[in-house]
Amino acid sequence: MSKVRNVFITGANRGIGLNLVKQMTSVLKPEKIFATYRDPSKSQELLELAAGNSAIHPIQLDIRTLANIDNIVKTVDEVTNSTGLNLLINNAGVSSKYARLNATKKEHLMENLEVNTVAPILLTKAFIALLEKASASSSSPPGIGKAVVVNMSSILGSISLTDNGGMYAYKCSKSALNMATKIMSLDFSKSKIIAVAIHPGWVKTAMGGDRAPLTPLQSVQGIVKLLESLNESNNGQFIQYDGEQLKW
Amino acid sequence: MSKVRNVFITGANRGIGLNLVKQMTSVLKPEKIFATYRDPSKSQELLELAAGNSAIHPIQLDIRTLANIDNIVKTVDEVTNSTGLNLLINNAGVSSKYARLNATKKEHLMENLEVNTVAPILLTKAFIALLEKASASSSSPPGIGKAVVVNMSSILGSISLTDNGGMYAYKCSKSALNMATKIMSLDFSKSKIIAVAIHPGWVKTAMGGDRAPLTPLQSVQGIVKLLESLNESNNGQFIQYDGEQLKW
Repeated sequence: MSKVRNVFITGANRGIGLNLVKQMTSVLKPEKIFATYRDPSKSQELLELAAGNSAIHPIQLDIRTLANIDNIVKTVDEVTNSTGLNLLINNAGVSSKYARLNATKKEHLMENLEVNTVAPILLTKAFIALLEKASASSSSPPGIGKAVVVNMSSILGSISLTDNGGMYAYKCSKSALNMATKIMSLDFSKSKIIAVAIHPGWVKTAMGGDRAPLTPLQSVQGIVKLLESLNESNNGQFIQYDGEQLKW
Repeated sequence: MSKVRNVFITGANRGIGLNLVKQMTSVLKPEKIFATYRDPSKSQELLELAAGNSAIHPIQLDIRTLANIDNIVKTVDEVTNSTGLNLLINNAGVSSKYARLNATKKEHLMENLEVNTVAPILLTKAFIALLEKASASSSSPPGIGKAVVVNMSSILGSISLTDNGGMYAYKCSKSALNMATKIMSLDFSKSKIIAVAIHPGWVKTAMGGDRAPLTPLQSVQGIVKLLESLNESNNGQFIQYDGEQLKW
């Protein structure tokens, strides 16, 4: 099992993001986890966690604007002593409420596409040089010992598996993110960087609601195991938290 | 073969859109074709065609804003004597130039998503009542004798078939449009309205370029034959101009 040195994860203040930070800290034990949040008043637990653990670097970032992203990349490069970035997890996302076509609004469509599709592409673009650096400088096989981009997707973004209507904004944004993942896997293969889309399962979070069958812990335990096992054969795949591959 | 009475098609001033208007006029002979264009100075041929054929109603429309769309829907309803809309073809689209990740810009991503994904969803929303009216009032089997929504997609939006990198904006927007098509097919099935995504082939147009193997005529001859043959089994499918079904 390869060791992961440096991780960057967005939307780390709650739900799956926060639980991933905890689980990675205790299992993968990276040297540095850069964990972004938008609103400090809603990020108490992450900020307390970081205060007690020098591996965790909280970073305030609104992924819609990516303001100041060049300085953030520079900070990551400095804090990691230019060892590069091994794992970028595009986790932050939004979900408009369920809506039939008649209730579908332009602002919701655009917001979901901007946050769930466009922001992960642009953040990956911002970090590609650090990902390439980590990959090139490691003798590990492809995987989190080199460099991996995880786009947190959803089974609701699977066109093949869609079997009910409505929810245009969220579903379309995740299908588009899946396409971006596939393109990245092809763009990055010569650099031995892996790109995967992960479905975390239906999880009891603010987004998933109370009826969800999985606890955040069950989901992130699966995801972290999956991250550890990633290899070249997974490049460009759509995989759920328990390792099962999903159709596009 | 069912007869199609009323058609609405966007981006009808050039390329596949203009050729579809010509081919439908000569083969399907609908009573009314509403054909939209954005810039009159680039729509000479469509406007001349319409001047010589009373079935063709040119309509100026920018699908990004859909300004005045409620009045346009009202006009369609009046001109068709409230017989409803049998065929909505979301054909207008844009394509950012080919770009690797490093050259991918936010404005191109957002523009492609707005024009190629969001506009077709919102235009379909605007016309759903007229589509339902046409479907409910026709005794034909599901197909263009009742009501059909065609989203003009591209094989470049097939995640499964993507085998080279770059071009994030266009490819992601077409994958998202494919998802929207699948959702529409489920939303509309109770109204017996069919939704399909069509890949027109790689066609010699301003968008497709000179190296494309197909002429516009070859493409639209195939598409019109395909439209005539559409039935309930095609609902929610991704089909290319020659009838071959594509994977998502």
